Amino acid sequence: MTIKAVVFDAYGTLYDIQSVASITDEAFPGYGEVITQIWRMKQLEYTWLRSLMRRYEDFSVITRESLVYTLKLLGLKYDPSVFDRIMVKYVHLELYPDAKQALVAMRGSKLAILSNGSTDMLNTLVRNTGMDHVLDATISIDSKKVFKPSPDAYTLIEANLGIPPAEVLFVSSNPFDACGAKSFGLNVAWIERVTPEAMALACTGTALPPLTMFKAIRMQMDELGLQPDYRVKTLADLPKLLNALT
Amino acid sequence: MTIKAVVFDAYGTLYDIQSVASITDEAFPGYGEVITQIWRMKQLEYTWLRSLMRRYEDFSVITRESLVYTLKLLGLKYDPSVFDRIMVKYVHLELYPDAKQALVAMRGSKLAILSNGSTDMLNTLVRNTGMDHVLDATISIDSKKVFKPSPDAYTLIEANLGIPPAEVLFVSSNPFDACGAKSFGLNVAWIERVTPEAMALACTGTALPPLTMFKAIRMQMDELGLQPDYRVKTLADLPKLLNALT
Repeated sequence: MTIKAVVFDAYGTLYDIQSVASITDEAFPGYGEVITQIWRMKQLEYTWLRSLMRRYEDFSVITRESLVYTLKLLGLKYDPSVFDRIMVKYVHLELYPDAKQALVAMRGSKLAILSNGSTDMLNTLVRNTGMDHVLDATISIDSKKVFKPSPDAYTLIEANLGIPPAEVLFVSSNPFDACGAKSFGLNVAWIERVTPEAMALACTGTALPPLTMFKAIRMQMDELGLQPDYRVKTLADLPKLLNALT
Repeated sequence: MTIKAVVFDAYGTLYDIQSVASITDEAFPGYGEVITQIWRMKQLEYTWLRSLMRRYEDFSVITRESLVYTLKLLGLKYDPSVFDRIMVKYVHLELYPDAKQALVAMRGSKLAILSNGSTDMLNTLVRNTGMDHVLDATISIDSKKVFKPSPDAYTLIEANLGIPPAEVLFVSSNPFDACGAKSFGLNVAWIERVTPEAMALACTGTALPPLTMFKAIRMQMDELGLQPDYRVKTLADLPKLLNALT
């Protein structure tokens, strides 16, 4: 197999979206974690629902609306300025600690991001974190006005890089995204940051801490009749996998 | 306005899907409620994900796969026979107590179900609960091979009943479904079984009981830039609303 490009999901894969919790916890003391978890769940739901309803709005709108939902659910009053601080954080998310080094080690291949984020949000985030020097392309789904896992979103890899799906390794920690990419025909490496054993342990017992459960629900591989080609624990495992493949 | 048909969502609207908890609790003592909540969440996610990936499988497959996901998440071992018992329960769900009387009172209009359920599951459920004597049609989305809230699903109302969207009142307790129907152009009554005040109260505090939160997440109106035309507390409020409209 010849892999000519490695394409990464952004939120949750290269960038730690839990790092938003510091802002939400500052604005709503004690609620930072719970807000982040519900917000992420609804943010994803809204990308799928708006795609299905053919009512696309860009990711910054969805991010804001899903946060409104979350604050209403929790009965929290808010000042509109909190949205601005949070959106600022969204373009200053923290990279996973091993992200930059792993990508630098793979520079023999084309490197790109394919993300649900809007072009503006993504380009700013990539620049703010110095990743513009490492990535060959930052691709937003917004030219297609449909979110992942629609196959239309994944067509943008070949459209932008000129490299066919069979020669692309797609990397995501999001199970639905790994399934969508596999369904489309890409080679897929799923980053499984938590082992099934650790997850089952965290979820065992009837009095479940909700945060553990919410997190686990985003991390266990989905049952959609699809499996990623490769499972790695962390971004740092990718250069070795890529060497083995090429 | 002339309303010539009232069309109902099935699961969660006419039928109480929480009534499956008795079976899951029998099979997994102490876990009945938590299984039911996670299962429902993943069941919906899978309808959306499979629709977007264009990998339709019918609702009985999705129901089974989302239960497998849930049992894995909770680290529960299972015997395949538990699936059979649960699928049997799915065609013997309990009607909400006011369902039959409310529908009988509206027999001056055409009455139908439009549901994500497969044709077989729905027809059996309707027959088992004696609703075949009250409903004029039971419409499954499976002829379109796409789930709600895709507009293609809602086109089946006019295709089956010959009544255009402007003359249909669509009734759902599921926020995403109420939004999808509204987006399509139907008149929509949303059944809001829990008040926002009660919900905010249930969710207030940082040590949230997970079940309360999971339930609330399915019951609060979504932030998708759409609002139902009418909000009612219960099915029993519908005959009066219909009289006021016609």
